[in-house]
Amino acid sequence: MTSSTPLADLSADDLAARLTTVRADYDALKERGLKLDLTRGKPGADQLDLSNALLGLPTSYKDRAGTDVRNYGGLDGLPELREIFADLLGVDVSTVVCGGNSSLTMMYQVLTALILKGGPDSPRPWSQEPVVKFVCPVPGYDRHFTMLAELGIEMVTVPMTPDGPDPVAVRALVADDPSVKGMWIVPTYANPTGAVCSAEVAAELMAMPTAAPDFRIFWDNAYAVHHLTDDEIKSADALGLAAASGHPNRPIMFASTSKITFAGAGVAALAASPENRAWYLQRLGFAAIGPDKVNHLRHVEFFGDADGVRAHMRKHRDLIAPKFAAVEDALTGRLAGLGIAEWTVPTGGYFVNLDVLDGTAARVVTLAKEAGIALTPAGSAFPHSNDPNDRNIRLAPTFPVLAEVEAAMAGVAVCVELAALEKLTA
Amino acid sequence: MTSSTPLADLSADDLAARLTTVRADYDALKERGLKLDLTRGKPGADQLDLSNALLGLPTSYKDRAGTDVRNYGGLDGLPELREIFADLLGVDVSTVVCGGNSSLTMMYQVLTALILKGGPDSPRPWSQEPVVKFVCPVPGYDRHFTMLAELGIEMVTVPMTPDGPDPVAVRALVADDPSVKGMWIVPTYANPTGAVCSAEVAAELMAMPTAAPDFRIFWDNAYAVHHLTDDEIKSADALGLAAASGHPNRPIMFASTSKITFAGAGVAALAASPENRAWYLQRLGFAAIGPDKVNHLRHVEFFGDADGVRAHMRKHRDLIAPKFAAVEDALTGRLAGLGIAEWTVPTGGYFVNLDVLDGTAARVVTLAKEAGIALTPAGSAFPHSNDPNDRNIRLAPTFPVLAEVEAAMAGVAVCVELAALEKLTA
Repeated sequence: MTSSTPLADLSADDLAARLTTVRADYDALKERGLKLDLTRGKPGADQLDLSNALLGLPTSYKDRAGTDVRNYGGLDGLPELREIFADLLGVDVSTVVCGGNSSLTMMYQVLTALILKGGPDSPRPWSQEPVVKFVCPVPGYDRHFTMLAELGIEMVTVPMTPDGPDPVAVRALVADDPSVKGMWIVPTYANPTGAVCSAEVAAELMAMPTAAPDFRIFWDNAYAVHHLTDDEIKSADALGLAAASGHPNRPIMFASTSKITFAGAGVAALAASPENRAWYLQRLGFAAIGPDKVNHLRHVEFFGDADGVRAHMRKHRDLIAPKFAAVEDALTGRLAGLGIAEWTVPTGGYFVNLDVLDGTAARVVTLAKEAGIALTPAGSAFPHSNDPNDRNIRLAPTFPVLAEVEAAMAGVAVCVELAALEKLTA
Repeated sequence: MTSSTPLADLSADDLAARLTTVRADYDALKERGLKLDLTRGKPGADQLDLSNALLGLPTSYKDRAGTDVRNYGGLDGLPELREIFADLLGVDVSTVVCGGNSSLTMMYQVLTALILKGGPDSPRPWSQEPVVKFVCPVPGYDRHFTMLAELGIEMVTVPMTPDGPDPVAVRALVADDPSVKGMWIVPTYANPTGAVCSAEVAAELMAMPTAAPDFRIFWDNAYAVHHLTDDEIKSADALGLAAASGHPNRPIMFASTSKITFAGAGVAALAASPENRAWYLQRLGFAAIGPDKVNHLRHVEFFGDADGVRAHMRKHRDLIAPKFAAVEDALTGRLAGLGIAEWTVPTGGYFVNLDVLDGTAARVVTLAKEAGIALTPAGSAFPHSNDPNDRNIRLAPTFPVLAEVEAAMAGVAVCVELAALEKLTA
């Protein structure tokens, strides 16, 4: 298909003819018997291979101070690993706690502790509030939303902009309603839009008045160093901005090496104000004796320092940037100018956000599935999987090999066009 | 001191003379300037050395089924590691979930999930009950009690017997009071008494009527394979007994390799009924994408199978049994027959339970501290650290080297006698 006339401008006859052609393309696609998966932001095997030296580390079992990392203790993590995270996140090492293999788990710990106990500045545990609400930028990360739903927290949405959550919309929600207790932000290369929260937006969010005295921003910096271009942007200094505006306890930063070393066997970290950090460690101390410090030391030996991480991330980029280019090529090649889809060209992170013709996203996912291409369910990037426009699809191109990304995305483009034509001719 | 006349039978003059002598012993002890620690059940460096091969493992990154353990997923853990735990715990592999480095964390996850969501058989989340109580066998493990206190759960005590928690006392507490929702048991070589829960007691506890339909027994089998003698006893089959008596969801088993491989970098597991297990995994799925499967595979490669674990535990025994013998020798050597102390001679586990003259435990700990010997604070083995008789002291001899255990325990014995004489002459 080479035409780039907007489909909406075509005559009924032309649309019908085009539907016939695209149906034939789709039938041919199905006949290929593909079995491809673009569902989740998982590193590919070649990315994991970059860290295989970890399997033979550590060579020592003592940290710099001579502590035996094999034994119990050290609730806040290995100091030298905390230094690496501090450098990467642009925060002081005194703010950092290193944990287990999952930042999602650390977020869950913080959220459940707020519910069960309240934060240092909470009038009471959140479980004793009649209602607790979170502001959810959409589209966003499905696991944030499912965690909130599991814990009975209501979700109110605001739009993501290319510079982060719309601060005007956020401010309107939080200013007068004390039941709005927090929000999640993926500040760098957001899941799924790739948006980067600007310093200005971050400053507004940290400074804005909130009716809740214990308003929390879960600053999930999952992709802080996951650049796809030479422009290795720096995340906004959430802790510094919050402290400067008198709300030091508002943000809690989270990060991990899940998409740096091994997705399932990396290390996670959080960074927070002195009061939040002490509160978190106190809660954590009732549930754990210490993190896996051997894995901490393993990572320290592997990277050396934060620059070691940055150099390592450039190797990831070399492997995955071509896959993102393949997504762009496939979508542009088939859909540019047709007026039935828009998509992001992210400069970092793990996702491409594809908005199709309103009312066709679920249909596109079904068509793809029937052609052997697994896509994240339509609506996943919205609370309760409810995309009010049925137009959003999250594409995750890192896990399949390049040829599979190319094949899958060529197929997705066919499905997007077919679903649009079905709708326009209905 | 060689006399073994009960001190209570001595005349006032004899007591006074003996006090003078023992004070001199104590002064001599202080002059040695010791710096010894018997506070926590930590493996010694030589025990950790037994597992140093782990530092170079795994050699592969695929499990038996070909799954890449480096990546995300596998919420219930590596199947071959689950098999090892199933064998060690005497349960079916289908009941087992392997997690991170801490069984304490898994207990906390289960407890907080019961509070926030309720179990599969709960009328409502425990947070919606006016009061929640747990039965606490005493003396017991301080971290169980502090976790309950942190989460606002009231504690009611029952005595530990040499065969486990006194089932008559337990039954009386749970039969009519629906707010009594659970209890903790360390069934094998209990912390701190070394008691082993007999099959008969276990059967009674699993079968007893409880007013709460969702009564839970946290079966913390931390020392399931931690034998100190040739009599490698088998833990009672809690899951089987519970299922047979119609209460399949009552027990949840916990265990870990913390005192098998590396205390801080081992793997933990739980085992539960099908309904409990599904419930746990559903909750866990909101908080985690999967455990550190590389560490799972590392342990599988290291042990091979459950018999590999058993053989490994005999090496631990060879290292720590002499330390337990040194405790016994020091206490017997100085205190036998004096009628001022009783202590356990455990056949497994990590602790010796020392009961001193009523009203002197805190004084013994203070005296020891002033002589450079750190002991677990008196009362630690009771809820809210409240030992109503002020007589219980937990000794943990594994971490120091043998000569230090000998020196520390000789000193402890002096302190026990001095505190008793102070009291008897007051």
